[in-house]
Amino acid sequence: MRISALAAAADVPLATVKYYLREGLLHPGTATSATQASYDETHVRRIRVIRALTGPVGLSVQQARTILGLIDDPGVDLYATLGRAVGALPPSVEAPTSDDPDPFPRARAALAALGQVYDPQFAAVAQLEAALAATEAAGMPLSDDRLLEYGRRLREIAAFDLERMPHEPHAAVEYTVLGTALYEPVILALRRLAHQDVASRRELG
Amino acid sequence: MRISALAAAADVPLATVKYYLREGLLHPGTATSATQASYDETHVRRIRVIRALTGPVGLSVQQARTILGLIDDPGVDLYATLGRAVGALPPSVEAPTSDDPDPFPRARAALAALGQVYDPQFAAVAQLEAALAATEAAGMPLSDDRLLEYGRRLREIAAFDLERMPHEPHAAVEYTVLGTALYEPVILALRRLAHQDVASRRELG
Repeated sequence: MRISALAAAADVPLATVKYYLREGLLHPGTATSATQASYDETHVRRIRVIRALTGPVGLSVQQARTILGLIDDPGVDLYATLGRAVGALPPSVEAPTSDDPDPFPRARAALAALGQVYDPQFAAVAQLEAALAATEAAGMPLSDDRLLEYGRRLREIAAFDLERMPHEPHAAVEYTVLGTALYEPVILALRRLAHQDVASRRELG
Repeated sequence: MRISALAAAADVPLATVKYYLREGLLHPGTATSATQASYDETHVRRIRVIRALTGPVGLSVQQARTILGLIDDPGVDLYATLGRAVGALPPSVEAPTSDDPDPFPRARAALAALGQVYDPQFAAVAQLEAALAATEAAGMPLSDDRLLEYGRRLREIAAFDLERMPHEPHAAVEYTVLGTALYEPVILALRRLAHQDVASRRELG
C-alpha cells in the first residue's frame, strides 16, 4: 500500500507516519519508484505499537525508541532483554546507590516471604520498595497475610501471561512490553469494580 | 502534646502542620491557653492520611479535601460514599454524556461476562472502558479467557480486602481510600516481579 493508505489503515495523520519514518521509529517501505514506496501490515502493526507507547503508556519518543530497539534486537539473552524492556516502562524509579549494601529491605523481605527471586537490578524491585514504604508512611503497612494473598493471586495472573507469550523473540518482547503496560490499567479498574461488586452483595455499615 | 511535638511525631515540618490547620484539613487541638492547644494521636493519624493523599496518591489539596470530607461525614449510605470516595481518586475519567445511551460498551460487556454489577455512574467503569479501548487500539485486545482469569483473581483479592474493612464508617472510608490507592502500586510491582520469577524458572527463547 502507499503511504496515504498506510496512514488510513493505521488511523493516524499522514504527517505522523512521515514523522515516524524520519525519526527512524518506523522501518522504510520498499521503494517502487524514485519518490514512492510500498508499505505492508508490518508497518500498520508498528505504528500501533508506537502509538500505544507514546499514548496510553505515556512514554516520550526517546523512551519509546529504547523499547522499540529492544523489540528489533532482542539479542541472545531474552530473559535479560525482557527485564530491560519492562524496566524502561513507567513508573521511573531511582537506581540504588552503589554504596548501599541493602537498598531495598522491604522488597527483599517481601520476595523472600513469597519465595520469589530477588534481583535488585530489576526495576520492579525499587518500585515495590517505594510502594511498600508509602503504605508504612500512611500507617497502613501491608500485613503478611495480605502480601501472601496478593502475591499468590498475582503469580497466577503472571503464569497465565507467560503461558501465552509468543516464542518468537521479537514478538515476545513486544507482547511483554504491551501486555505489562496496557493490561495494568485493566487490572486496577477490575479490582475497583470487584470491590464494588463484593460490597454491593453485602450488608454494609 | 504541643504542636511542635505533633510535627515531630508525624515527621513533617511545623509549617506544614500550621498550613493543614489553616486550610481546615486538620481538626483543631484542644485549647489549653489563649495561644496554645493540645494535640493527640488522632492528629498524627490525620496528618499521615493527608500526606498520603497529597504525596504518593498524587491529589491536589482541593481533591484531598473532598476525600477527607467523606471520611469525616460518611452519611447514611456507606456504599454510595465508598463509591464517591474511590471515584475521587486518580485516574480522572470523563463522565458520560447524557445523550449516549451506551457510553461504556466494552466495560458493560466485560462486567456481564464476569457476572458483576454494572453501574455506569461508578468511575471505575469509565476507567475500564478507556483501558480496554487502549488494548484494542494497540492490537492487543483482552481475550475472553484473559478477562475471566484476571477477573477471578482480582475478585479474590477484592473479597480479601472487603473482609478486612473496619465496621466503623469513618474508618471504613479511610481504609477503602488508602487501601485502594496505596495498594495499587504494590499490586503492579508484584505482578511485574511475578513475571520475572515465573520467567526465571523457564527455558526462554
